[in-house]
Amino acid sequence: MGDGDEVVLVGFWTSPYVMRVKIALAEKGVHYLYLEEEHLLQNNKSPLLLKVNPVHQKVPVLIHNNKPVCESLIILQYIADVWSDHRPPLLSEDPYRRSKERFWVDFFNNKIADCGRRMWACKGADQEAAKNEFVEVLKLLEGQLGEKPYFEGDRFGLLDVALVLFACRFYTYEMFCNFSVEKECPKIVQWVKRCSLRESVSKTLPDKYKVYDFVLEVKKMLGIN
Amino acid sequence: MGDGDEVVLVGFWTSPYVMRVKIALAEKGVHYLYLEEEHLLQNNKSPLLLKVNPVHQKVPVLIHNNKPVCESLIILQYIADVWSDHRPPLLSEDPYRRSKERFWVDFFNNKIADCGRRMWACKGADQEAAKNEFVEVLKLLEGQLGEKPYFEGDRFGLLDVALVLFACRFYTYEMFCNFSVEKECPKIVQWVKRCSLRESVSKTLPDKYKVYDFVLEVKKMLGIN
Repeated sequence: MGDGDEVVLVGFWTSPYVMRVKIALAEKGVHYLYLEEEHLLQNNKSPLLLKVNPVHQKVPVLIHNNKPVCESLIILQYIADVWSDHRPPLLSEDPYRRSKERFWVDFFNNKIADCGRRMWACKGADQEAAKNEFVEVLKLLEGQLGEKPYFEGDRFGLLDVALVLFACRFYTYEMFCNFSVEKECPKIVQWVKRCSLRESVSKTLPDKYKVYDFVLEVKKMLGIN
Repeated sequence: MGDGDEVVLVGFWTSPYVMRVKIALAEKGVHYLYLEEEHLLQNNKSPLLLKVNPVHQKVPVLIHNNKPVCESLIILQYIADVWSDHRPPLLSEDPYRRSKERFWVDFFNNKIADCGRRMWACKGADQEAAKNEFVEVLKLLEGQLGEKPYFEGDRFGLLDVALVLFACRFYTYEMFCNFSVEKECPKIVQWVKRCSLRESVSKTLPDKYKVYDFVLEVKKMLGIN
């Protein structure tokens, strides 16, 4: 793509879906204008967001030369397609490996998001069940990682980009559910630390204490005690 | 791909997710061995299915040279990647158009499947709400189609391949919810007829009365009156 490209990202600071787009753009060395939405729970979404994502009205939206692309995993695919000559490749060159990457990203994305929400929004037995399921999912993720530095071996790829950002919520989950992610899944925590050595990740992941405070605020707003 | 490729599809005759893979393979002129599962609700899934899709244990699974690919939309993407030189292309060459195709396929796939299930599994006000939502979704689909023969203009593409098969359930929905899809969304029915002129579609879509009988049987098995 030419230097004259105009790239805008509409986001919100605690959204993991926005973070994965930030990481992908940073990895590809794409310069962009970042527009932060106001607090998304206060029903004051910007006219821009409503215009560029009328169907879901959600962040992130990547606007490339005035054309909006919505849904974070579709945006990652778009970035892979458009900036395909920028290293590293987000997806494997091999169609079979690529299908596996897509499969696991979908699977873990849905599972982690679902367990994560229930871990802070539920109480008692439901919360405990969510925590147990979360640990089970992370252990499955550890199995996929194996002894490799990244999910695709030496290449920092789609699974790394799409999943590492959930780590900024680990502290929140630990506070609510009284457990240690590191104790349960040490390899995942090592992988997060490895990913965090990359500037694309370290500059994107927000402070874990601020995330926790934000979740407390959200709970209060939603009337969840 | 070489002529020596071994392609196997594990499926079940009423699954729209299997049908879309059949249509894509037929469009690409790929020869394959089709293996029909026994009745999927009777907990007698084949050892092969459990082996090739241990995570979801669901059809379809495409086994290409002994490598299994699961989840119908990921399989379509895989077919597009592997048989990219076979006409017609499943996805647009243009990254932006491709992102739109992915966006709408995800959106309509989830919406139609969700409304569809509620239309035969619910009763009373819930069923009525599902029907109204279904018509609303089909009208949105009509809006995407516009005056074009296919969603991508003259090209029979991803949205056509991934969505046309839901038409084999229209009769079932009409029987349960007492309405006419053709009356509500005439352009969608015209589009289905247009798609059905293609051998890939006409040979894949099952008889609508058989589908209805199957759904009646499923309801009985699930104890839904």
